[in-house]
Amino acid sequence: MSASIPENYLDLFKKKAFGSLSTLMPDGSPQTNPVWVDYQNGEVWVNSALGRLKDKNIKRDPRVSVAVIDPDNPYRFVEVRGKVREITQEGAPQHIDKMAKKYLDKDKYPFAQAGEQRVLYKITPEHVHTMG
Amino acid sequence: MSASIPENYLDLFKKKAFGSLSTLMPDGSPQTNPVWVDYQNGEVWVNSALGRLKDKNIKRDPRVSVAVIDPDNPYRFVEVRGKVREITQEGAPQHIDKMAKKYLDKDKYPFAQAGEQRVLYKITPEHVHTMG
Repeated sequence: MSASIPENYLDLFKKKAFGSLSTLMPDGSPQTNPVWVDYQNGEVWVNSALGRLKDKNIKRDPRVSVAVIDPDNPYRFVEVRGKVREITQEGAPQHIDKMAKKYLDKDKYPFAQAGEQRVLYKITPEHVHTMG
Repeated sequence: MSASIPENYLDLFKKKAFGSLSTLMPDGSPQTNPVWVDYQNGEVWVNSALGRLKDKNIKRDPRVSVAVIDPDNPYRFVEVRGKVREITQEGAPQHIDKMAKKYLDKDKYPFAQAGEQRVLYKITPEHVHTMG
């Protein structure tokens, strides 16, 4: 079961639009955080670091949702619900630099902390909801 | 078990800042939508309409999270996790007009659909996470 993000909403992933990523806590309750989002080959990619709350949550339960609001029109948005299909550290440092370029116009991610290990989460959409 | 939103983040609820509300689907997976948010006496209030997905989800499982990003600085946000303590239609039509004033500077909510019955959800914070 997979779904597509309509072409006419893909611009949201080119803008500096934040996603709100929801994961599930150990007790099944939802947890929501702003994230940088990327669109690659039909999937939504999110980058975090080993050991963070969302990293632990996703490894326990891969079911997530990401809502992206158009910064130019808050009444236009896309919500993607689905599962994290792949979790990988491979390419994650390069990918966070790419996100820094997109969101901060910097060639290198400037917020890295000592010993931080980046992780990439690839989300396959199962349900896509759009508005606006 | 309840938590407080720090005083120095309450300005987020005075700005035209959208919340991202996450609720739980029947299978326990998360669902996330932009919402208008209000802060009242330590609680976060959200307004929706009878029969909507989030209305059904909340009535099945009151556990939610709301993340509010500062529109003036996307790296500053507050996340509130907690339970919907009260669901009521009382005062909900007046409340949506109040939200229309805040977000649209209109005295009356302009998007009402025929037969729509507004519902107010009052969320007691259990965990509050801030950044920036």
